[in-house]
Amino acid sequence: MTARTEKTLRLLFPQWQGGNNPPYHLGARLLAWLAPQADGPIEEVPVPAPQAGDAALAQEDGIVARPALLEQQRQARRLIDKHRPDRLAVFGGDCLVDLAPFAYLNERYDGELAVLWVDSHPDIMTPAQFGNAHAMVLGNLLGQGDPQFVQHVRRPLKPQNVLYIGLHDPSDWEAAEMRRLGLRSIDPAELAQRGNQAVLEWLRHTGARHVAVHWDLDVIDPQQFRSVLFARPDVPDDFFEGIARGELSLAQVVDLLAEVAAETDIVGLGIAEHLPWDALALQDALARLPLIGTPRMKRPPPP
Amino acid sequence: MTARTEKTLRLLFPQWQGGNNPPYHLGARLLAWLAPQADGPIEEVPVPAPQAGDAALAQEDGIVARPALLEQQRQARRLIDKHRPDRLAVFGGDCLVDLAPFAYLNERYDGELAVLWVDSHPDIMTPAQFGNAHAMVLGNLLGQGDPQFVQHVRRPLKPQNVLYIGLHDPSDWEAAEMRRLGLRSIDPAELAQRGNQAVLEWLRHTGARHVAVHWDLDVIDPQQFRSVLFARPDVPDDFFEGIARGELSLAQVVDLLAEVAAETDIVGLGIAEHLPWDALALQDALARLPLIGTPRMKRPPPP
Repeated sequence: MTARTEKTLRLLFPQWQGGNNPPYHLGARLLAWLAPQADGPIEEVPVPAPQAGDAALAQEDGIVARPALLEQQRQARRLIDKHRPDRLAVFGGDCLVDLAPFAYLNERYDGELAVLWVDSHPDIMTPAQFGNAHAMVLGNLLGQGDPQFVQHVRRPLKPQNVLYIGLHDPSDWEAAEMRRLGLRSIDPAELAQRGNQAVLEWLRHTGARHVAVHWDLDVIDPQQFRSVLFARPDVPDDFFEGIARGELSLAQVVDLLAEVAAETDIVGLGIAEHLPWDALALQDALARLPLIGTPRMKRPPPP
Repeated sequence: MTARTEKTLRLLFPQWQGGNNPPYHLGARLLAWLAPQADGPIEEVPVPAPQAGDAALAQEDGIVARPALLEQQRQARRLIDKHRPDRLAVFGGDCLVDLAPFAYLNERYDGELAVLWVDSHPDIMTPAQFGNAHAMVLGNLLGQGDPQFVQHVRRPLKPQNVLYIGLHDPSDWEAAEMRRLGLRSIDPAELAQRGNQAVLEWLRHTGARHVAVHWDLDVIDPQQFRSVLFARPDVPDDFFEGIARGELSLAQVVDLLAEVAAETDIVGLGIAEHLPWDALALQDALARLPLIGTPRMKRPPPP
């Protein structure tokens, strides 16, 4: 169980440039607002809020918003080093928010950190496959991919200490890369069939005593929980055709983490990719309403 | 346009008992969190937060939670009278939150208040048809229905000063009652065809100079905006069969109110029936997560 006497740092990290999607910013803030009060320190990584008139983010050497993302990693590490916490809870933001925190935790626990990557996607791409760094973060934590990002990982994770949960239908390239790296995965069907025991057995097998959990909310069925990329309301149904979408329930993830926490020491938990479409639409509407915001006669086209 | 030099009171009213649905409480708070900062006073009507172990609310003389609802009306009126504002913005909560505010505004503007009721439903039921008072609020404001609620309306609205917007497919009883009371309605098809001019012409015709707007968010298409009753994720698709659901877009309502505000004096705006299902599920999950909340091994059945 969580040792409450040791220090847990809560890190609010509203990074959105890693997914090139401004709503991640509100997603992080809303997550923090919904969470129970922290009983330890809280820090916020400085991230420029998206502005209505923002120019499109530029790609540099194959990665969108490279300088901003690298600077945000430095800032996150600075805040972590200021506290040197035993445990870290991260409120993202896009998936890249776990780069500095998990790199720190693997140093803190002598390179023996185990990681549960609860996600529909493997996050091991490189600039050769895709330009958004949020799809590269686990690769970077394993010492793979773009050198400027890998540089923030002094001690890479051991691939045999990483387990995917909820991942399914990777692309051919991803599946081959997972094999090459030796990454193990429990897909939604196996989890449904074998239950949490499958995860607990794997954890015992690693011998790791400290576990970090990366939870990409897009692992949840978008019919059940709509504040994720694949439930975006203003696009046609086939807009995300061919990209794996979540198949787990919220209760499945919550129950799994409770069981893991009862058997091992969870030292890191990052929650990422919260895209609260309704809250965003409502925030926009409220800003334009009489008596509450500033009415304008016609809405400009969306950016 | 809004005269910013006069006093606008912002009233946070997280009433949920009028719809017998605890998530309205979070809905009101989230609405207030998403709104731009107020430039006038803010008050919160004291409403007991729903508790996990709450017994089901009791019906008394045909109305669920009658004493709590009446007490909340008294509290709302007390806070309004404390400020005697020129204008009121109300963040609900269920639809009943506009009872005390609109009653006050019609007194404040000498019985000549015009009301735009932007809603899929007419809200004129009585305990003879239904037990949840949020479906009775406009009836009460017109001096109809349960005497203990009507008692809070010293000066009833004139039916010819009320216009429904977005309402469609009322029940036979509702349609007959609307005819009996002489209530005019612009349904989604007419609004789409004639545009905002239809509303502006009606307003000119009334001669009213002060307008209050009741906006039930369920008037919005639940495919586009899912934080409403009819987009509840944990029920079968036919759960709300036979009940009219929203057909307007958020942009339609926002643009309409901007045009109305440019031509007349909007003195009241109440927003109601916000049911942020995802935020609620996430709040519940966060409370049970390691490092953030208190993990529990198995979730108790929902209340």
